[in-house]
Amino acid sequence: MTDGIAGGTAAAPIAVAVLVVLFSVEDGALGVHLLPAGAGRWRLPGRRLAAEEDLEEAAAEVLAEVFGAEATHLEQLYTFGAAGRGDGVREVAVAYFALAPVGSAPARPGRRFAVDGLPPLAGDHAEVVALAVERLRAKIHYSTLGLRFLPRPFTLRELQEVFEAVLGEPLDKRNFRKRMLAIGCIEDTGRRVRQGNHRPARLYRARHGDRVEIVR
Amino acid sequence: MTDGIAGGTAAAPIAVAVLVVLFSVEDGALGVHLLPAGAGRWRLPGRRLAAEEDLEEAAAEVLAEVFGAEATHLEQLYTFGAAGRGDGVREVAVAYFALAPVGSAPARPGRRFAVDGLPPLAGDHAEVVALAVERLRAKIHYSTLGLRFLPRPFTLRELQEVFEAVLGEPLDKRNFRKRMLAIGCIEDTGRRVRQGNHRPARLYRARHGDRVEIVR
Repeated sequence: MTDGIAGGTAAAPIAVAVLVVLFSVEDGALGVHLLPAGAGRWRLPGRRLAAEEDLEEAAAEVLAEVFGAEATHLEQLYTFGAAGRGDGVREVAVAYFALAPVGSAPARPGRRFAVDGLPPLAGDHAEVVALAVERLRAKIHYSTLGLRFLPRPFTLRELQEVFEAVLGEPLDKRNFRKRMLAIGCIEDTGRRVRQGNHRPARLYRARHGDRVEIVR
Repeated sequence: MTDGIAGGTAAAPIAVAVLVVLFSVEDGALGVHLLPAGAGRWRLPGRRLAAEEDLEEAAAEVLAEVFGAEATHLEQLYTFGAAGRGDGVREVAVAYFALAPVGSAPARPGRRFAVDGLPPLAGDHAEVVALAVERLRAKIHYSTLGLRFLPRPFTLRELQEVFEAVLGEPLDKRNFRKRMLAIGCIEDTGRRVRQGNHRPARLYRARHGDRVEIVR
């Protein structure tokens, strides 16, 4: 297969890396998963791409290494390619983000940090995390991405807690419920669940739980 | 600077390329700019990244080579990294898209093709164009991206023509105008223009013409 790119007879000495921002919602806060990078710093899970690998496959593999096969929604975020990147060898990094379902086991190795309490990060990883948070927060408004944190049936209260954690701000309960029901992306399972002393709450599920749709 | 990526002591033999999808709106149709790739095939403008270059700078340079400095809104689209990419040397391509202002001079060298009448394209470039069109069409609904085709003052009719060309479908005039005025992203310049036998039409401009905002 030829791709018709002219010029550049030899590959420039550039390495390609994949990075994965794994988001989770825990204790009402949005978190990301980090690995120790030495000297008190932390880094995103990631590694160099091998010549015979698909980018997507490499990202999925990195994700599986720290989290098993439970993450939902691996999505390409952005490619970071400032000339100063990399340690010795010039490196272009293709960043992805993924969502850990609410209540799933913590990722390992490494640790979860709330996005508003990150430790010092290696290289430009703080920039990568910041962009991922921005994308997630924007996209939760105009798509069904937020539902992917809840692959199992959920109450509207649980859904609101996820949205509040992602957005980092409280939402009006009545408006939130009205909107969620109006956009038609969730459906009543017909089941109810009792939580504490509250009346039994309806359980909903995403209408198309396996994909993310744009909502207008 | 270290970025903390473990493993991969040497750079894998992977080349990094930039590709640019330059969109234009002409004669009521959305078009993209292509270069001849030989054997009756066409390709997107692009080239290999040099080791000391920023990705963004390389994309801007590719764009300037075919279009001068007039394009608005160069935005990273997606990075294509299937293992089979490239001709001999494995190649990862970082694709960008840009907008040519309505009425600007045609890009050169190369030719403009309507997106619904593309010639055979080299490699995976048809896939790149398809994703760029999808992104543009989605984003025009929830952002002020469409206004970037009109950096000069415009009538609501001209604006609707751009939206119709991008979306490839006619829009209801009354609803379109109502929405454009309601979201508050355009402002009346106080000037009017006479077009043909119509009453003089108000001239508007983007309120924040130099940036793209998300509209809810």
